[in-house]
Amino acid sequence: MIAREFATPGYALADVDTPALIVDLDALDANIARMAAFARAAGLRLRPHAKSHKCPAIAQRQVAAGAVGICCQKTDEAAAFVAAGIRDVLVTNEVVAPQKLARLALLARDARIGVLCDNATVVDAIAHAARDAGVVLDVYVEVDVGAHRCGVAPGAPAAALAQRIAATAGLRFAGLHCYQGSAQHLPTPDERRRAIAAAAVDVSATRDACTARGLDAGIVTGAGTGTFELEAASGLWQELQPGSYVFMDAHYARNTRAGDGLAFVQSLYVIAQVMSVPTAERAVCDAGLKALAFDSGLPLVSARPGVTYAKASDEHGVLDVTPGAGIALGDKLRLVPGHCDPTVNLYDRLVAVRGERVEDVWPIARGTLG
Amino acid sequence: MIAREFATPGYALADVDTPALIVDLDALDANIARMAAFARAAGLRLRPHAKSHKCPAIAQRQVAAGAVGICCQKTDEAAAFVAAGIRDVLVTNEVVAPQKLARLALLARDARIGVLCDNATVVDAIAHAARDAGVVLDVYVEVDVGAHRCGVAPGAPAAALAQRIAATAGLRFAGLHCYQGSAQHLPTPDERRRAIAAAAVDVSATRDACTARGLDAGIVTGAGTGTFELEAASGLWQELQPGSYVFMDAHYARNTRAGDGLAFVQSLYVIAQVMSVPTAERAVCDAGLKALAFDSGLPLVSARPGVTYAKASDEHGVLDVTPGAGIALGDKLRLVPGHCDPTVNLYDRLVAVRGERVEDVWPIARGTLG
Repeated sequence: MIAREFATPGYALADVDTPALIVDLDALDANIARMAAFARAAGLRLRPHAKSHKCPAIAQRQVAAGAVGICCQKTDEAAAFVAAGIRDVLVTNEVVAPQKLARLALLARDARIGVLCDNATVVDAIAHAARDAGVVLDVYVEVDVGAHRCGVAPGAPAAALAQRIAATAGLRFAGLHCYQGSAQHLPTPDERRRAIAAAAVDVSATRDACTARGLDAGIVTGAGTGTFELEAASGLWQELQPGSYVFMDAHYARNTRAGDGLAFVQSLYVIAQVMSVPTAERAVCDAGLKALAFDSGLPLVSARPGVTYAKASDEHGVLDVTPGAGIALGDKLRLVPGHCDPTVNLYDRLVAVRGERVEDVWPIARGTLG
Repeated sequence: MIAREFATPGYALADVDTPALIVDLDALDANIARMAAFARAAGLRLRPHAKSHKCPAIAQRQVAAGAVGICCQKTDEAAAFVAAGIRDVLVTNEVVAPQKLARLALLARDARIGVLCDNATVVDAIAHAARDAGVVLDVYVEVDVGAHRCGVAPGAPAAALAQRIAATAGLRFAGLHCYQGSAQHLPTPDERRRAIAAAAVDVSATRDACTARGLDAGIVTGAGTGTFELEAASGLWQELQPGSYVFMDAHYARNTRAGDGLAFVQSLYVIAQVMSVPTAERAVCDAGLKALAFDSGLPLVSARPGVTYAKASDEHGVLDVTPGAGIALGDKLRLVPGHCDPTVNLYDRLVAVRGERVEDVWPIARGTLG
């Protein structure tokens, strides 16, 4: 096969073949520093969620800035981060397949590894994997604090599961995973405030239930880019897990965090090229459903007034053009993805640029296995 | 990094780690044979669209069944198919970047390579690449027959572009690309019939305009899984480009082809595992936005009455469960993707199964470059 040209350090951004996923390093570094400063000032542990980037190079920057470790969502991601030298990884998900638990336990020979549990029948399977590997795994009880996805009910049911974990050889009961995922995307600050206030009631009830059983509730961990100040202000969470803040996206820009004071800046873009200009009002670029995620809405076209991303098909993005916007065949566009996490998951490499120059090309651990 | 277990030939499907993309080989072979028989009976060339599968192993099966070659959408895909021995590849897209045109032209040393054009200013760039590589490229004029995406207007403008291509050294004017993409997804047979009837008027006008300039219009190529019988019946198209028929998906099942006589069967599935059963009415599986495409709606749960895929987040699929449906932790589900093409693009490998056994594991040429 003929070798494909790709970006290498020193390349001009203008020469990078499209579509390409790029991160603006100045913006990325500013976002990492801003969140680290927030956690430090609040006296809280920061464990950024690495499912957003799946990129060991970014995890290393987050840890260097003071993070205690990272979260991720899958066993495969955990393996990639441990291989890259991250020494504290929490898989914020239920893991039930024996082969996944076996892989996870082996990772605990090289790093502190945590995993969630929301069902008593899985406790023994996790412990079995840990003992087989000769390790101890951190296990957090996932408490349903309002998102109604995974998680055991708050209060006594969660405390009972915690007690069972604490009593099981090979496992360390590490704390309560209290993440209100659906609150991240509520459109108004007031709705977010009410959702986290309700979650805080659940956290309190669960801690009290643990205390009643003579059990230390451990670390309460959770929060995301949409709500982390609220969890911090509550005094109930000891650890924050925001992920999207490193990149931001069009959904955060137009919805959840629009107008907020704490301004993270957009660092993630897809570079697309205009490959057809059929009429004065329509152009077509080479980034569609296979280059951008559309679950949270359309991408935004950065710094090109009069050019709007209107419609996607597999490999085409149709652009509405205001006459006079001056779009031309071959133009490169910077698109702000609608949703950062699943967009990153479409790419094998992230092109790290400083200004108009490629500084590095980072692999993305984007496997789809669990 | 610890090696990940994955399917290998001989594996039981039940042991394949999740989420995994699988194709049922009996269903795939039946679909390939059925479309080949249709084209043969209609006396038409079949050039299946390989953007759906990006899988050289499937392209080889299609060619073995009588296809003249394949279509694809990107230079990188073309390179993967040529490397796999496909000797006739048409990139059904505009290509404008010089580095992409150079790669495409080099492929023409090993295969017949075609590309689309909808703008006179690109003709010289394509010719330049062809002459640099010492090859001749097939160039088709993309005619906008109603989809209003790329394409030059039908009739005289298309014929003028065809004439310019025909007069350019290094290029062979090969025909008219007349694909009505938006007709594929119209919900009723009558709407699809009207859309293709309108496209046929455009094809006729363009052929007449070519004739008026003393130019043979060449091969009229187009059509998709949603409409191919209509293009065939018109007598105006000589070549059919259906892609999705090899796999099918939930969108085709519930919309475009529901109730049609020509029954292709579902061959593509994502296998997911239930990792949490928080309540009697809710379960959560491990296939979400990063394991399935959602642009054309939610996936269907195959052969599990009372279990419905209700909501996705990055790595979670929330299932509504009718009490009594008997869902249990660890259950494996067969999900029918909402849209086959972008779902395949999320995976590096396609697990080919016959019954309950893995017969092969095929690489997917899923690069995101153009």
